[in-house]
Amino acid sequence: MTDDARDRPVRVEQDLAEPGYRRGVIALLGVLAYGELVGFLTIAQEAGFASSSQDKVTLAKVATQEFAHYERLATRIEELGADPHQTMAPFTRAVDDWHRRATPADWVEALMKVYAGNSIANDFYREVSELVDPETRRLTREALEDAGQVEFAAGELRRAIAADDKVAGRLALFGRRLIGEALSQAQRVAAENDDLMGLLVDTGSGYGLDLRDWMHMFTRLTDAHTARMEALGLSA
Amino acid sequence: MTDDARDRPVRVEQDLAEPGYRRGVIALLGVLAYGELVGFLTIAQEAGFASSSQDKVTLAKVATQEFAHYERLATRIEELGADPHQTMAPFTRAVDDWHRRATPADWVEALMKVYAGNSIANDFYREVSELVDPETRRLTREALEDAGQVEFAAGELRRAIAADDKVAGRLALFGRRLIGEALSQAQRVAAENDDLMGLLVDTGSGYGLDLRDWMHMFTRLTDAHTARMEALGLSA
Repeated sequence: MTDDARDRPVRVEQDLAEPGYRRGVIALLGVLAYGELVGFLTIAQEAGFASSSQDKVTLAKVATQEFAHYERLATRIEELGADPHQTMAPFTRAVDDWHRRATPADWVEALMKVYAGNSIANDFYREVSELVDPETRRLTREALEDAGQVEFAAGELRRAIAADDKVAGRLALFGRRLIGEALSQAQRVAAENDDLMGLLVDTGSGYGLDLRDWMHMFTRLTDAHTARMEALGLSA
Repeated sequence: MTDDARDRPVRVEQDLAEPGYRRGVIALLGVLAYGELVGFLTIAQEAGFASSSQDKVTLAKVATQEFAHYERLATRIEELGADPHQTMAPFTRAVDDWHRRATPADWVEALMKVYAGNSIANDFYREVSELVDPETRRLTREALEDAGQVEFAAGELRRAIAADDKVAGRLALFGRRLIGEALSQAQRVAAENDDLMGLLVDTGSGYGLDLRDWMHMFTRLTDAHTARMEALGLSA
């Protein structure tokens, strides 16, 4: 829970009977679901850069976990009476764009995307999960489960940075692109989608963050990213 | 069971105590395991060509199933006292080469690879599974499970061929590359690996196919491929 939001009202399961809140939750599950689906595809693609079968297996495990999350989210969307594919449709462009603009050029960049990119997404969803009812929160948090991939990536990145001076500068640059594109796409998604915006930002409902808290959240995401980059000895 | 091999002795579980047979089974599980691992990675990559989220999900399901097979094969290799990664190592080049040479250029070629490529591999493993003990056979057959992807791919291919005259010629060409590369890599793998060759081809053990049956098997694989291409109205 953030300081800013501690005294705000919290959503409960009964709120799902409110059409606006329900649409907002379905939209949130939709963007999460498409993120997990494309996360699966891109991590599996990035595993193509791995030269050893051990590393391929490690990334394949991460990818299949993302797909399991997708399946649980899709099931929940159906339980709420919506079609998963229709629900994901408004978000495909922004998520695809983020992956296209943050495409790693090699194995260390792929590791950086796991280490920093996944972490930005996880921080975002952890913040958002504070704003929703307990069942939706549980499912959102489940989608954040980490099978140890961030730690794995951090270890590999430390080794790669220690082994080659030139790697640090390139990774610092790629890290900046990851956070920049992530914040830009997240804000675009929310701004373009009234259902999602209505869930996350209080525009009269009495729930969600006010606009100041919403901007503070992005500052926290940026701070956490900076700390992660510095933990590898990289300038953020 | 093939006609040629019907009267040949069949392997039993106790044979796993024989070092030569055991090494052969471990090698077979190794090439199967690496095939499933890379199958996972490439199907996930090919799903990138899918334009709809529905098709992405369909291919993601196929891919995760391949990875589940990989995990079961790796577990069995460990049960037999070997390291999965060391066991896969002699086969990585041939399997990687097959995928590199049979890389689909677009969505219809990706579908063709699922339809024809997976089927060639499945036919091969089904033949080979006749030569091994029941537990190894069970595991090999499990790795051949089809979640409906061949039927899915066939349906999509029929639609694509009907919609565009030029597609048929290109797919016929790609199909020929798939079978040619598959047979070439399969023969190379067996020829280069004494343990696997010892398991599959009888060179004095009294088990396995004799050389004539071995060649007949490749003829059957080619015939089955031809029939599959003709089922789509394509020249093989």
